[in-house]
Amino acid sequence: MARWQPDARERLQQAALELFAEQGFAATTVPEITARAGLTTRTFFRHFADKREVLFAGDAEVPAMAAAFLAQAPAGAAPLTIVLDGLRAVAETRFEPRKAAVRARREIVGTDEGLQERELRKRAALAEAIRAGFVARGLDGTRAALIAESTVTLLFVAVAQWLDDDRPLAAIIEDCLEALRAELSPP
Amino acid sequence: MARWQPDARERLQQAALELFAEQGFAATTVPEITARAGLTTRTFFRHFADKREVLFAGDAEVPAMAAAFLAQAPAGAAPLTIVLDGLRAVAETRFEPRKAAVRARREIVGTDEGLQERELRKRAALAEAIRAGFVARGLDGTRAALIAESTVTLLFVAVAQWLDDDRPLAAIIEDCLEALRAELSPP
Repeated sequence: MARWQPDARERLQQAALELFAEQGFAATTVPEITARAGLTTRTFFRHFADKREVLFAGDAEVPAMAAAFLAQAPAGAAPLTIVLDGLRAVAETRFEPRKAAVRARREIVGTDEGLQERELRKRAALAEAIRAGFVARGLDGTRAALIAESTVTLLFVAVAQWLDDDRPLAAIIEDCLEALRAELSPP
Repeated sequence: MARWQPDARERLQQAALELFAEQGFAATTVPEITARAGLTTRTFFRHFADKREVLFAGDAEVPAMAAAFLAQAPAGAAPLTIVLDGLRAVAETRFEPRKAAVRARREIVGTDEGLQERELRKRAALAEAIRAGFVARGLDGTRAALIAESTVTLLFVAVAQWLDDDRPLAAIIEDCLEALRAELSPP
């Protein structure tokens, strides 16, 4: 077994994103990724099931993180307060430190229908975790579904804008909430 | 070529929904569907590409209908007014007349991961058509995305409630909009 490399995972991700951008997702092979990273394919498969997983690494844990966040929120907290606290934390810990990688991923996902489906499933899994978390907090199913879907809408619409913008994601989320309130107010 | 049957399509859909409910989606074959409907497999394949298409028949045209609806709305109409007019029309023409079929479909889709993905893609295609329609009407990308995603949220959350409810879908949509405004108002 190769010596444990603390940064092997990040090096593989970086190499994969570079190669996907240079020559396309479909044309890139795992041996090319590992060669670029200076690692073995065996190391690759210790970290990722396949090259698609490189793009979505860490995303599988997001619904569970959302569920845990909802479960530990103060008993009397308003749903929107919990949502905004959660989105702020996600913006600061998962998005701001890796804007270039998120942008590269958007480009690659846009080129491949299978990756777009994976993105839709990811989004649906997050909405479902939030919905279930609010039902567990006592909200009725309709309220829980509305706030869950809107949370995911705010996050994804704000991230899309953030990738073309210089302002912090958390500020853009606040603006998107204001804009959404305006759109939904009685005409 | 068999004599044209004005109700062949509906008979095939009805037979398929019955069989999917009785014995499961995966276990049902096209010859079983056509036998139940008293029609030939040749007729089946004139109407549907495969048994999955029976469940989503007509859905492919929904994004184009939404695009046409947005294109013909009065120039100065508020986005939410257009959305509510569109949702009301959809509720009355596509949902109210076939509640039993929509309910049967929900049960079947819930049992099959491939069908759930198809449902997610359908939903994403509708949101994209609405977003593009509002951009074509002059809204900026963020506003258009927010109203498009919220329209789809309102429709899908309201339909889920309507299936377990006796009130008209249009009334439930109005209630969901009120509930969404309340959830998003400053805590």
